[in-house]
Amino acid sequence: MHQLSKKIKVAVDAMGGDYAPQEIIRGAVMAAKKGNVAITLVGHEAIVERELAKYDVSHLPLDYVSADEVIREDEHPALALRHKPNASIAVATALAKEGEADAVVSAGPTGATMASAVMSIGLIPGIQRPVVCAPLVGFAPHTVLVDVGANVDCNPNHLLSFAVIGCSYAKKLLNIAHPKVALLSVGTEEGKGSKLTQASYPLLESSNLDFIGNIEGGDILSGKANVIVCDGIIGNVILKFYENMGPYIVRWLKDRLGNLPLLGPIKKVLNHMVSFTKMVEDESGCGGLLWGVNSVVQVLHGNSQAQQVSKAIERAKFAVESELVSYLTSELAKVTNKHDITLNESISTPKI
Amino acid sequence: MHQLSKKIKVAVDAMGGDYAPQEIIRGAVMAAKKGNVAITLVGHEAIVERELAKYDVSHLPLDYVSADEVIREDEHPALALRHKPNASIAVATALAKEGEADAVVSAGPTGATMASAVMSIGLIPGIQRPVVCAPLVGFAPHTVLVDVGANVDCNPNHLLSFAVIGCSYAKKLLNIAHPKVALLSVGTEEGKGSKLTQASYPLLESSNLDFIGNIEGGDILSGKANVIVCDGIIGNVILKFYENMGPYIVRWLKDRLGNLPLLGPIKKVLNHMVSFTKMVEDESGCGGLLWGVNSVVQVLHGNSQAQQVSKAIERAKFAVESELVSYLTSELAKVTNKHDITLNESISTPKI
Repeated sequence: MHQLSKKIKVAVDAMGGDYAPQEIIRGAVMAAKKGNVAITLVGHEAIVERELAKYDVSHLPLDYVSADEVIREDEHPALALRHKPNASIAVATALAKEGEADAVVSAGPTGATMASAVMSIGLIPGIQRPVVCAPLVGFAPHTVLVDVGANVDCNPNHLLSFAVIGCSYAKKLLNIAHPKVALLSVGTEEGKGSKLTQASYPLLESSNLDFIGNIEGGDILSGKANVIVCDGIIGNVILKFYENMGPYIVRWLKDRLGNLPLLGPIKKVLNHMVSFTKMVEDESGCGGLLWGVNSVVQVLHGNSQAQQVSKAIERAKFAVESELVSYLTSELAKVTNKHDITLNESISTPKI
Repeated sequence: MHQLSKKIKVAVDAMGGDYAPQEIIRGAVMAAKKGNVAITLVGHEAIVERELAKYDVSHLPLDYVSADEVIREDEHPALALRHKPNASIAVATALAKEGEADAVVSAGPTGATMASAVMSIGLIPGIQRPVVCAPLVGFAPHTVLVDVGANVDCNPNHLLSFAVIGCSYAKKLLNIAHPKVALLSVGTEEGKGSKLTQASYPLLESSNLDFIGNIEGGDILSGKANVIVCDGIIGNVILKFYENMGPYIVRWLKDRLGNLPLLGPIKKVLNHMVSFTKMVEDESGCGGLLWGVNSVVQVLHGNSQAQQVSKAIERAKFAVESELVSYLTSELAKVTNKHDITLNESISTPKI
């Protein structure tokens, strides 16, 4: 077994999530038992102590830092952070900023985690907002869709940065040495699409990425492209549409099969299909990474339980070991475009 | 059988499409034989005569009008129309403009058909470009997605007009008396989404339509909304993604079923699933209508053969019988919004 000379330190927001603090702390204990990672729980002292008392943690690399406040789902992220400087997510990201933690994991409100990460840790040059990648797994295991998150109103430079992030994802996490990049649009010809895709095409084409042109919706799952670039609203809609197809597919199949008795293996496969959402989520856990933040920050669904928390901690550890942040930083600095200026310079001059 | 006092006249572009003129003319003959529709083929005289000579058309309500030129897929629609005033699609739409035809059917380049329809026939007040509706059939038989076509860069007034068109579609073609309208976005709350969706929300909410708020990608197939409104780029990507899922679903299922022998009925259902695209196309033929044009104009896929052409002619006839154009015109005139101005007035002042 590979033994790291120095344990990777992960700050876990103990108070964020529907099942916090119980499931978060149970997951952290699970991850700590697996070894090779040191965990700092961040949360209300009395509550964290009470939960930890349920386990034998005396020999585990597990400690905690006190944070009295919590940000709720219905609060405005930036405002809440201003009014609650001692919120668990703020304290957790501060640990990363100060080098006390190598990574942060939170199942709290994603907006608050993003805002806290940006305000406290900051962004890599060339990035304006954290970017979320969605590996499509399931039907398209060699393809990642970027952005599926917060970047809803984009300019061409955003899309170029998404392409760089997507390539970093494909190289480091999907083991694709030479990822092919495509731009999602309504037709394959350069002139097809919105003002955004029309303006982004030449920027991608003249870059040093392997840009194969526009791709239509029907080819998303074809594997023709390893990285599919789009604004966050299209990406988010496509991802959620895809993740949630399972039950509709199975209902349609069962309606047509009528009363036909199904063999066990077929039933099993159909049950697997119904839980397609969960499968996509489980397999695409690295999709929870906030790309572009200057440290590893892994977000989790609010409804995550101990198993998911433990996995997220392992993934955060893997992201640190893989040096994803410094890799992306250097990839962003290297990207060229037809204006022959750096992404960071050009990004301040939106084209549309 | 219902006998119309006066036959509906459909102009068919005999020269447009991958299999023109043979399959187009064969389809027109099929439709003419079914009766209750008079067909005018538009195309090169010698070619149309040669094709018609293959059939006994002496007693059919079928004639033709000469048009010497054809617009190809690779030509710029508006430029081609200017240089080829005698192109088959131009002559066909002119027949509709002059009242010589009640409807136009073409499998030629959609861009050219749209441009020709707009330039010759014109648009209904309140509409800026033809709009394409996609009934989702298959997994969501009570839902229509609007726009999935040419309107890629939209303002809020476009989205309001899409909602009116979608409601007309749902009422007249899906028999839904009180369609529910939703706005496709990245979150259900009003503030979530792009500048476009944020600005469109209050416009839809204050209209006289049954607006139920934002809907996310995961709920597109849920049936919660009968009309889902989005810009044409998202709609087009979602529609093509959806239409083309069949083979990926079946490959995934078969991979997991391994060598398990499949009973005939299961094989049949899986084959049906593989051809999901074709099923969606076949069942959603009314999606080929160019909504907003001041006459019935039905577009077909370029690769359509006689069967599809015959169906499209029947659908065009149905659209005329249902008085879809005058119905939509009155619905657009009736729609209210928070600015208390007509759609046609407000549409000239984009909000973003």
